[in-house]
Amino acid sequence: MSELRIAVTAGEPGGIGPDLLLALAQRENPARCVVFADPDLLRQRAKELGQAVQIVEYRPDAVPPPDALEVRPIPMQGQARPGVAEARFAPYVLESITEAGQACLDGTFDALVTGPVQKSALLAAGLPFRGHTEYLAEQARSEPVMLLIAGSLRVALATTHLPLAEVPGAVTRERLVSILEILVAGLQSRFGLAQPKIRVLGLNPHAGEGGHFGREEQEVIAPAVEAFCQRGHQMEGPVSADTAFVEREGIDAFLAMYHDQGLPVLKTLGFGRAVNVTLGLPYVRTSVDHGTALDLAGTGRADPGSLFEAVDCAAQQVRAARHWAEAA
Amino acid sequence: MSELRIAVTAGEPGGIGPDLLLALAQRENPARCVVFADPDLLRQRAKELGQAVQIVEYRPDAVPPPDALEVRPIPMQGQARPGVAEARFAPYVLESITEAGQACLDGTFDALVTGPVQKSALLAAGLPFRGHTEYLAEQARSEPVMLLIAGSLRVALATTHLPLAEVPGAVTRERLVSILEILVAGLQSRFGLAQPKIRVLGLNPHAGEGGHFGREEQEVIAPAVEAFCQRGHQMEGPVSADTAFVEREGIDAFLAMYHDQGLPVLKTLGFGRAVNVTLGLPYVRTSVDHGTALDLAGTGRADPGSLFEAVDCAAQQVRAARHWAEAA
Repeated sequence: MSELRIAVTAGEPGGIGPDLLLALAQRENPARCVVFADPDLLRQRAKELGQAVQIVEYRPDAVPPPDALEVRPIPMQGQARPGVAEARFAPYVLESITEAGQACLDGTFDALVTGPVQKSALLAAGLPFRGHTEYLAEQARSEPVMLLIAGSLRVALATTHLPLAEVPGAVTRERLVSILEILVAGLQSRFGLAQPKIRVLGLNPHAGEGGHFGREEQEVIAPAVEAFCQRGHQMEGPVSADTAFVEREGIDAFLAMYHDQGLPVLKTLGFGRAVNVTLGLPYVRTSVDHGTALDLAGTGRADPGSLFEAVDCAAQQVRAARHWAEAA
Repeated sequence: MSELRIAVTAGEPGGIGPDLLLALAQRENPARCVVFADPDLLRQRAKELGQAVQIVEYRPDAVPPPDALEVRPIPMQGQARPGVAEARFAPYVLESITEAGQACLDGTFDALVTGPVQKSALLAAGLPFRGHTEYLAEQARSEPVMLLIAGSLRVALATTHLPLAEVPGAVTRERLVSILEILVAGLQSRFGLAQPKIRVLGLNPHAGEGGHFGREEQEVIAPAVEAFCQRGHQMEGPVSADTAFVEREGIDAFLAMYHDQGLPVLKTLGFGRAVNVTLGLPYVRTSVDHGTALDLAGTGRADPGSLFEAVDCAAQQVRAARHWAEAA
């Protein structure tokens, strides 16, 4: 099997992203990890942390020194201060994501793992950025499905970073069918689940209580679920969100209708070890489950647990995808 | 201190409500519990369960036999079948709740504990019933606040049984201020928390991400929270719902903006021992956290844990309210 290469972005230079990437160099990784970032930013942060990490430029055919951090240089103008997110670095941050995404689209890399960005800094700079998920999907011209994983709990979202008022209108039958297609295909090809069992949540409280608290369940969600069941898929719902997660045994993935319906449970149960996965892209993409934690940047107290999980999960998905492709 | 009396309703006769009330008689209760239900229904269910429970009519000044279940009779036409919810019993179900609520308003009883109803059966009978919380508040002409408790976790809701599409419009500054007033007063007088610390969630994902995913946080929620902080209350928010529950230490109550934002975490962490509390009524009211569980009715497998918690929580609140009134 060919070498497995993962592109990793540092995200916001004032946040804990650079700290976490330096921690990657001091660990046995399941793949060749190459950081898309400014090498001077990483050297500076290593100095601030009192860490002796060797930063080398990535050369595809060279064997890097052991414990070195390979970097594909993305130049940044100026020097970031740990703990401060500045809009002037926004173009650099976006470029690092764009380059890393492109390297995966090219097939030079097998997977992308992203560090946390400060959305407000990107938006303050006038850049169109609702989230990595949306940005990378646009670059790849694909429809994305956001899936969060913590241990054996997987929660996918039918809508992601939308104002709540726009959620009901965005949950259409066509969109749900498309998302369920991507979710089923992703669970099969990237997680090796030949017959994934999916529980679909309702949109309204008590899944609409028989139509008394909203009719989207009857008109939109139930028909979509039924169509999949008729095709032999293992799917149930729409179920009431409040008790949906009480008995989780045997459910391979939950589909929540919106961000705050699905993620509070997942993050409460698994914060610090959760991984954010994008399905629907032509390559594997994972991310940490946390933000830039500006107050921890440069202090040595940033926990790289979620980044390590994200790297491991990405490598597992690439391996599973190769097996799936071979078996097909 | 005077005797503490709790009115308990059986809820849906075809559900597990009657089973749970029979279990009450076989337990040391922290108050005198009187069931508002049809005595024949309870006798029939006891027979079906093979239980020898003495059912006696409630007489305020009489001392009931030990282990007897005191019943304030509400006659029901016909015989319920365990496992079947029928719309023909809906008027009876509603009458039992109305009578029990009235007995608390009269001051004959100190608290109300409600068993689970089948909302769909009540609605199918054409009765206006969105939920106990709303119904009892209307009877008492008060504004209710729904608070769920599981262990040390308390979650209040700014909106309850509304279609999701109606939630953003229902979260007004005036309403939030009113709810926070009731929540603070309730935590003080019924839980003995002189300076309750409250964490308020945002309405939109990431609490609006600085206005990019919705502006309700800036325009509605933040000003309401600030007004309370300026008056010396301990309140924080709006915070992002997905990570709000990760660190719960020191938070006396969370205020979620809607049902499925707050309850999945609470029920996942505490199902089976959670209690539903209504604040804002002139008396103490608690409820089980589960539904009618039709499939378990009459089988002997219904778990009375949540009902016991609801009774204990009601008794504690009545005692705390008496202390608070004495101290005032």
